[in-house]
Amino acid sequence: MNQALNFTITKKLEGTMARSGVISTPHGEIKTPAFIVGGTKATVKTLTNEQVIALGGQSVLANTYHLMLRPGAEVMAAAGGINKFMNWSGPTFTDSGGFQAFSLGMAYKKGIDTVSHSEKGDAAQAVHSSTQLAKVNDEGVKFQSHINGELLFMTPENSMEVQHAIAADIHMSFDEPTSPLAGRDYIKQAMDRTHRWAERSLKRHQELNAEHIQRGECLQALYGIVQGAREEDFRKESAQFLSQLDFDGYAIGGVFGYLEIPQVIQWVNEILPEDKPKHLLGLGSQPADLFLGVQYGTDTFDCVAPTRQARNGALFTYDGRINIRNARFCSDFSPIDSECDCYTCQNYSRAYINHLFRSDEILGLTLASIHNERFVVRTVDNIRDSIDDGTFFEYKKRFLERYYGPEQSTLFLD
Amino acid sequence: MNQALNFTITKKLEGTMARSGVISTPHGEIKTPAFIVGGTKATVKTLTNEQVIALGGQSVLANTYHLMLRPGAEVMAAAGGINKFMNWSGPTFTDSGGFQAFSLGMAYKKGIDTVSHSEKGDAAQAVHSSTQLAKVNDEGVKFQSHINGELLFMTPENSMEVQHAIAADIHMSFDEPTSPLAGRDYIKQAMDRTHRWAERSLKRHQELNAEHIQRGECLQALYGIVQGAREEDFRKESAQFLSQLDFDGYAIGGVFGYLEIPQVIQWVNEILPEDKPKHLLGLGSQPADLFLGVQYGTDTFDCVAPTRQARNGALFTYDGRINIRNARFCSDFSPIDSECDCYTCQNYSRAYINHLFRSDEILGLTLASIHNERFVVRTVDNIRDSIDDGTFFEYKKRFLERYYGPEQSTLFLD
Repeated sequence: MNQALNFTITKKLEGTMARSGVISTPHGEIKTPAFIVGGTKATVKTLTNEQVIALGGQSVLANTYHLMLRPGAEVMAAAGGINKFMNWSGPTFTDSGGFQAFSLGMAYKKGIDTVSHSEKGDAAQAVHSSTQLAKVNDEGVKFQSHINGELLFMTPENSMEVQHAIAADIHMSFDEPTSPLAGRDYIKQAMDRTHRWAERSLKRHQELNAEHIQRGECLQALYGIVQGAREEDFRKESAQFLSQLDFDGYAIGGVFGYLEIPQVIQWVNEILPEDKPKHLLGLGSQPADLFLGVQYGTDTFDCVAPTRQARNGALFTYDGRINIRNARFCSDFSPIDSECDCYTCQNYSRAYINHLFRSDEILGLTLASIHNERFVVRTVDNIRDSIDDGTFFEYKKRFLERYYGPEQSTLFLD
Repeated sequence: MNQALNFTITKKLEGTMARSGVISTPHGEIKTPAFIVGGTKATVKTLTNEQVIALGGQSVLANTYHLMLRPGAEVMAAAGGINKFMNWSGPTFTDSGGFQAFSLGMAYKKGIDTVSHSEKGDAAQAVHSSTQLAKVNDEGVKFQSHINGELLFMTPENSMEVQHAIAADIHMSFDEPTSPLAGRDYIKQAMDRTHRWAERSLKRHQELNAEHIQRGECLQALYGIVQGAREEDFRKESAQFLSQLDFDGYAIGGVFGYLEIPQVIQWVNEILPEDKPKHLLGLGSQPADLFLGVQYGTDTFDCVAPTRQARNGALFTYDGRINIRNARFCSDFSPIDSECDCYTCQNYSRAYINHLFRSDEILGLTLASIHNERFVVRTVDNIRDSIDDGTFFEYKKRFLERYYGPEQSTLFLD
């Protein structure tokens, strides 16, 4: 293909910003809306590629920060890129590494898993506090590797260089995320820097794509990242600014929870070019995220929470979440959810998975991950179908009322 | 079928005790010689059943001690037995729990994995020392649950009751293993007790089978366990004693390492009924175990070491073992072994598996387990073929010379 990426809108849902479509990449198509499966370190945690495909995963999103530290850009390039490295034949994304560079330096000597999400959020805030876990200036961000404490410096240019070595189909521009606790002044400062970095990311990306053309290789695509926190004027300014740059698509960062979606995503998507795909970064662990995200124009989601929760035993059912470790499941021989079509629910009982979790058996993590990931992927697939046949609002109401209960679901049913 | 088990010898290899055959059980056939896959807690560690089948696993061996403690015999019975509980459709074995009752009490408050193998061996010895981790008398063995410290009493009768609740196709009689450090007096005492327990196991087993017949259920099979350590007279006495009891097959316990196989297994198998299947307990982590075991009349093996070693990154190749975590594999894009036909070697590189191990990614454990288990299963399958076509000794020489080197391999090439 001549372009790095092609996006076709199949159907628009009247009175909303929702649409279905197809993103075409050199490694195949993604039918949208789609949930992109988390493959942070070039592996979907606990799953083989065949298991990812069987649960309906169309595409995988890996993380530049993690792969830059280990195995390193050189190994990724020597492998021939992420598809060959992890033997995944479908489309791939990489996140820019910005969020992790700001937030994971604090994990050194503690281990990533010991750093809570709120701490990670605070870390971005700490950039301009005395603790200074990561230091940012206009050139880039200086941070400590969470693996060995090495001091590293990441810039928009080297984020793009590493992303081109990883060679996913779709890259993200290097951005500065802000903590939900940041004040307007700092949000503005970080947003302006994110815009300058977007220009620099795009420039370096275009140079690297020119080299791909010379070598007869596939082009790679780049999404610009919209920031601006919960501030309407900043979000609109950010969308306006980025719209003028020739990105292949757009990602929306810094949206904290589904209650922000109807406002923030709408502000942004009313300005961004309608014909470009939109990605919502890091949201999708709540069914409400998925329905509201799509309703306000999101084409793709990524979120590692469904599989992280699975590894903690927190499993989705259509009637809400359960903790499979609970004693009441010890001799419950029904599947996690009798309406689920995943490998786990078709083959194993709650009692068995409870036993695996209580016995610290890894198969439990695998079976739980398959289930939760299938639950989310299938929900987005069903949302896509509901756009195509015009039943989106009926499906949304039925799903959310049952999942959250009639009272709480009114939060999402406008 | 009218019998719990049927064993047909297909081919005998002249001048040796090696034979190929078929064990028929209510859940299907096992072509022998066969490596039985370790499924200690009703799961083959890190693998789905489909992955076990794909690597050639014919049958799974679970452990009565572990399943008695968790999820418990009641849950296993309520599930309808181990096949339904773990959704495995093929033949199954259970170990009697004797070895674990003697050896795992010491793991309470430490975790099983913190107890080394030599410590476990010593624990059996400690039965008659002042530390008294497990107390044995003619009635049975008193021990602490390694999970919660609860004091438990296990007898031949309740081992059989638990095994019938687990409902594997092939059970083991309850025995008292001895430490390799035990003296002749204690070995004799433990062996005599093992014989009395064999009679009691068989009696209770036959009663439970009579109940199965009344309920129109499948019969279950029982193997007697031969003990006697490295003492020729005891081993022969043990084989003689057990031969007179109506077991469906025989297991040989307490063989420590391949160098003991040619003597101990020969002493025993020259006496045990030729037409009954013979199982070698807990050996098979060394290719030499497999070749020598078969040569001296072993039909089935079980050993969890290949997958435990896999989880530590120690992987089999036809040229000896490698540690995949080693830095030299960071950018080695060849498979673990280019002659291996396993899923892992067909799809992933050493560099990728090295990355997964260094990144503590669970998929690494899965891919490594698939490889090591396939390596052992395939080796035994090839040994079976080499009996059928009369090339056993050529295959043995070629394999062992390459794996151990020309010098060390002479230890096994008589």
